[in-house]
Amino acid sequence: MKIVHSPLNAQHDPKHFLVNGSIQANPEVPQRAEMLLHAAENAGHGIVDPADHGTELLGKIHTRRYLTFLERIHERWQRQPNASDEVIPNVHPIVPAGGYPDSAAGQAGFHMTDTACPISKGTWDAVRAAANAAIHAADMVMRGDREAYALCRPPGHHASSETAGGFCYLNNSALAAQHLRRNHDKVAVLDVDVHHGNGTQEIFYRRADVLTVSLHADPVRFYPFFWGHASETGADEGEGFNLNLPQPRRTADDDYLKALHAALERITDYGAEALVVALGLDAYEGDPFEGLAITTPGFGRIAEAIAGLELPTVLVQEGGYLSPELGDNLVSFLDGFARGR
Amino acid sequence: MKIVHSPLNAQHDPKHFLVNGSIQANPEVPQRAEMLLHAAENAGHGIVDPADHGTELLGKIHTRRYLTFLERIHERWQRQPNASDEVIPNVHPIVPAGGYPDSAAGQAGFHMTDTACPISKGTWDAVRAAANAAIHAADMVMRGDREAYALCRPPGHHASSETAGGFCYLNNSALAAQHLRRNHDKVAVLDVDVHHGNGTQEIFYRRADVLTVSLHADPVRFYPFFWGHASETGADEGEGFNLNLPQPRRTADDDYLKALHAALERITDYGAEALVVALGLDAYEGDPFEGLAITTPGFGRIAEAIAGLELPTVLVQEGGYLSPELGDNLVSFLDGFARGR
Repeated sequence: MKIVHSPLNAQHDPKHFLVNGSIQANPEVPQRAEMLLHAAENAGHGIVDPADHGTELLGKIHTRRYLTFLERIHERWQRQPNASDEVIPNVHPIVPAGGYPDSAAGQAGFHMTDTACPISKGTWDAVRAAANAAIHAADMVMRGDREAYALCRPPGHHASSETAGGFCYLNNSALAAQHLRRNHDKVAVLDVDVHHGNGTQEIFYRRADVLTVSLHADPVRFYPFFWGHASETGADEGEGFNLNLPQPRRTADDDYLKALHAALERITDYGAEALVVALGLDAYEGDPFEGLAITTPGFGRIAEAIAGLELPTVLVQEGGYLSPELGDNLVSFLDGFARGR
Repeated sequence: MKIVHSPLNAQHDPKHFLVNGSIQANPEVPQRAEMLLHAAENAGHGIVDPADHGTELLGKIHTRRYLTFLERIHERWQRQPNASDEVIPNVHPIVPAGGYPDSAAGQAGFHMTDTACPISKGTWDAVRAAANAAIHAADMVMRGDREAYALCRPPGHHASSETAGGFCYLNNSALAAQHLRRNHDKVAVLDVDVHHGNGTQEIFYRRADVLTVSLHADPVRFYPFFWGHASETGADEGEGFNLNLPQPRRTADDDYLKALHAALERITDYGAEALVVALGLDAYEGDPFEGLAITTPGFGRIAEAIAGLELPTVLVQEGGYLSPELGDNLVSFLDGFARGR
């Protein structure tokens, strides 16, 4: 399978975030992409550098003011007294805002839901490169490849139409799905990251032309905490086109595959013509987030089942954090996907 | 004037918060209350310790789940791995939450809008004592005193029905107003703190029985950033019963008094039978927040004008941070108030 990847991702190298009130090392590091790339190359997959796909598509998924914020905030932030190098929010409009703020501090809190998304000088270039990789992979599938894998970093599925959160800035999976919509009337996004894909859900929540399905650790005690419940089924025209399948903590391969079967059935019933897989590898039993307990061979079984849908498919890298088996898990997934075709 | 104050305030002693991405010393320190108390005592005002007014009134201003959160979160927080001693949120539902979270981390982000409100072991006792002081002062006014001053700490006007923010946990001014409603059909809250009273606004936004009026530095580039614009006028039954008078940065006495005149006129037109003054002293020209530029004699002129309404009045201490003149500013206000009667 072709791997779309940009080395620009390494320009984004966040240092810290706040967890349970303590400053901890940010696990969304460039080494993640290096490990994944190295493993995929060793397994014989070819690497493609993405073209620049411009900003028109970005404007269909994200608001204009959010894109402007991401592009310019780092420079503006530095003009504040005693500003940190990284943009980190400290005040949030949990009660709906009465107006859009002008100040850097106000906009940071408006567009960033947590401290896990610091914006440094290189962040915008890195997130644009990740978005380009996802769009490029979708483009390859639209031009005839049966599948392609976008090795995106930073990830995207927690980014909503105008908020960054959970290490995510632009929603790479949503961009791929939107791009596929040019050729296909019905597109599905299947999110197998250990965390609920709340950004993707929000973006398509009122739309019926993109079905969103997410399997994840139950948010009742797991990030993103506020979304990902089975009761969230879509709204307006999108009612019935969002399916959440929260799983108990430490769910392992067999039970997970049962839930996956329900997800795939829904995608088939929907009549999806193309598929985006939001491919987190952090459901792994050895992932530092310890949400689910998928084994390395388990990722192969998951991929094989998904491939069996026989849909044009864009795989978009989401989470999956440093463990010795990170690369093995990707290779297991890609091998399984090939088996399922 | 009688001063209602509890030494329990000192059990809440927050250490740090995040400003422009940097960790800074939290200015909402017990020394604030000490300076104010010392100055008021020296000026001959008598001190009253508040009674415990129970929790029934709290439930009229704040949601039950928020009160439970404030009371119990510190203990629950400690059970998390590597938890900090103070509760500090790190993830917020800026996109409306799909459900109420179960976990300590989720609830902290749900109920706390910023990092300025750490909750430590003594916080709940301190905020209860501040609420009791405000209710007690209102009670004294309802029993015949023309005015009373609640020296509350921590402050309250940024606390909404279920969010803490900006050093505030329980909304002391709103509690005083709600208590006054037992004897009076129409109560007004006049907020002269340098920051917009966004919590008080939210609590009464859909009610016509409590008029909320706030003079403050324009939020376009000043905390609380998201609220305090002139366009926010109330909703539903409360439409027309919220008046925001944002002032340009560093507005001084004369211009401020003109805006205050408009505020007092609105309160008179409304037909208020009793008044709560959310008395921030941080509009001072030497306050570390540098929002407005009121002089020490200016506070006396402001108080004199407010006293001229001839309404039963509860003064509730809000912000006002350490400067050599903090106590002088309070005495100037209390003297001016006496002159205006």
